[in-house]
This record gives sequence, C-alpha cells and structure tokens, in this order.
Amino acid sequence: MFEKKLTAQAPARPAVQRRGVERRRAILDAAEALLGEQGYEAASLKAIGERAGIPVASMYHYFSDRHQVDAELLQRHLRAVEELIGAAVERSDPMSLRAAADAVIDPLRDYFRAHPSCVELWFSGRSETVTALVREFDASLADRFRQLLVERGLVSADTPRYVLQLVLEVGNRLFDIAFRQSPAGDDATIDEARRMVTAYLETYAS
Amino acid sequence: MFEKKLTAQAPARPAVQRRGVERRRAILDAAEALLGEQGYEAASLKAIGERAGIPVASMYHYFSDRHQVDAELLQRHLRAVEELIGAAVERSDPMSLRAAADAVIDPLRDYFRAHPSCVELWFSGRSETVTALVREFDASLADRFRQLLVERGLVSADTPRYVLQLVLEVGNRLFDIAFRQSPAGDDATIDEARRMVTAYLETYAS
Repeated sequence: MFEKKLTAQAPARPAVQRRGVERRRAILDAAEALLGEQGYEAASLKAIGERAGIPVASMYHYFSDRHQVDAELLQRHLRAVEELIGAAVERSDPMSLRAAADAVIDPLRDYFRAHPSCVELWFSGRSETVTALVREFDASLADRFRQLLVERGLVSADTPRYVLQLVLEVGNRLFDIAFRQSPAGDDATIDEARRMVTAYLETYAS
Repeated sequence: MFEKKLTAQAPARPAVQRRGVERRRAILDAAEALLGEQGYEAASLKAIGERAGIPVASMYHYFSDRHQVDAELLQRHLRAVEELIGAAVERSDPMSLRAAADAVIDPLRDYFRAHPSCVELWFSGRSETVTALVREFDASLADRFRQLLVERGLVSADTPRYVLQLVLEVGNRLFDIAFRQSPAGDDATIDEARRMVTAYLETYAS
C-alpha cells in the first residue's frame, strides 16, 4: 500500500524521464550510424536529428551542439573498449610481453573495425573535449597496463609510468595510420605496432 | 670591350633581380624570427612585412599568401637539416643501430632547438603544402636511412621500406611530444625515442 501511494503520487515523471533516455539513445545511435557511413562532416546536429526522427528544435533539449553528441558517443565507445580489453587480459592471462600487447591491441582493432564512428572520433582531435577524453582514457589504460606488466613480472617494477604513456602515444599513431589505410585497419601496420611495442618494452624486462 | 657592351645593354635587370632575391630572403628571415618568437598565429603576412620593413602591397609581389612563406621557409629548413644529417652520418660511420639512430636524432634535435620556427612549421600540419613537404622529406630520409643500415649490415637486406617509414612516423610523433613539453626538446622523451627505434630495428637485424 505504501508502494502504491508512491507511484500514484508521481505518475508522469518516470515516463518523461524514460522518453528522455530513449531519445538520447536514439540520437547517439543516429550519430554513430551517420559518422560511420558518411564521415565527420556529414554528421551535423541537423542531419543526426533527421536520421533519429527528432525535430531539430527538440535536439537542443538534449544536446547543445554536435560536439556534445560527439563526446557522449565517444564515452559510450570508451566504456565498451575498456570492458573488452579487461576481458581479453583476464582471458589470456598474458605470460609474455607479446601476449600482453596482443591482449590490448586485438580487442582495440576488432572494436575499431566494427565501429567506424569510433575511428572517426578517436583520431580526429576535432574538439577539445574529444581530445581530452582520449587523453584521459590513454592515461588510465597506460597505468593499468603498466600495473599488469609489473604484476606478471614482465617488466621491472621501476619501469617509469612515462614509458607506458609513450607506448600508448605510439600505439595511437600507428592505429591512426592503419585505419587511414583501410577501414578494416591495415594488418601489416598493426603487426608492426605489436612488434615495435614489444621490442621497446623488452628493454624494460625485469 | 665586349663585356662592357653586355653590361651596358642590360644594366637594370641584375640589380632588380638582386633586390628581389634580397627581399625574399629578408621576408623569410622575418618570418623565421616571428614564428620563433611569437608562434604561428602572430606570423601573418602583414606582421612579417612590417618586421622585414616591406610594405604589405609589395609583399604580394613576392608571396601570394602566408602559406607560401611558410612553405619556402620550411624548405630552407629541410635543406639545412638534410645537410646536417648527411654530415653526421658520414662523421660517425655508425657501427651499431644505436649509433645510426643517434646520427639522425642528434642533428635533428640540435636543429629544432636552435630553430623554433622549424618546430612551429614541422609539427603543425597547418597547410597541405607544409604537410606534403614534411611527408616527402620523411619518405626520402626513410629510404636513405634504410640504405645506410643495409649497407652497414645493421639490418637485413630484405627489411621492408615500410618499417623505416613507420620509424620516421613514430620519431616525428615523439619529437612533437618532446618539443611540446619544452622549447629545448625534452631529453627524457628523445632518449625514449632512441631506445624505441633501436629496439624495433634490432628485430630486423641481419
């Protein structure tokens, strides 16, 4: 009876909230599709609204500009990538630097392949927010990757954080090149990335 | 007498040509100083003209826009860098991959340190011409570096060209980071670049 009273008192709000959540998701889905199919320039706020079937005027109720859509979509991608890398590391239980590099590189490559909108946003650096999100993600991944390598005894415990940060910088650059060469990510380039990162980290082996 | 006649026939042209050459050089010198002291945005065609003591209207006689000044100044830098690397390689006669990496990295670092305008142009990618010039320089340096390493027996003869192209890409990225961190080029970053490039190339040792 107490519960009934609560729901009876505020019947409209949950429906409005639910519609808000659904519309935001529809906008992000439309942005993802447009970015992937037609690239960055085509994915204007107007075009995204049309694709999502939401009037442009209503779009501003959810997002102030396209950069905000970009940022939220990228965050969705980053959460997914983070989970995939975590699962790959746990599954592979890497016993070598090469296996550890693969446990990061393989899920990233697969995700970028399946999500061209993520490639469009990740490497474009088209807004400060997007650049900051990628930088933050890289810094966090560098620290977690370093911890993993030290715990497994694959690099020495005094390996500087900076070394892993540079690995991520170089990895990003080589992935950017790989996905510029082919929407599937050029395998030759990605293999050189594995080789370079592994050889470099081996100079820090414990 | 024959010589006298020749100079008498066309007295104005050499003087005009010489003034043209001098003015172009004065414009490039002014652009170099402005870029180095105040950065990219400050070095407009107007500001360069003022610095060089040349009226803006006359500036257009020599350069159609600032991108043309940028491109010509960068070409001047690239010729100087090319000579310095050539001299360093000859002087050091590198007998190891690390020595070979140093023979390219040291003169580049020294030149960037002494010429901040070169750093401003090299890493900015602010015009297609500038990007194309750097790319062309890198491609040529990658080929010459590869040839050197193969001739000295430091990498195997079937090392793909692409490997050296990626070395240059990664080297560029790490130099960019080093010179963002400090106008003198952060030595810790540059040392990691030596380490990474050497370790990677060692996987192609003959």
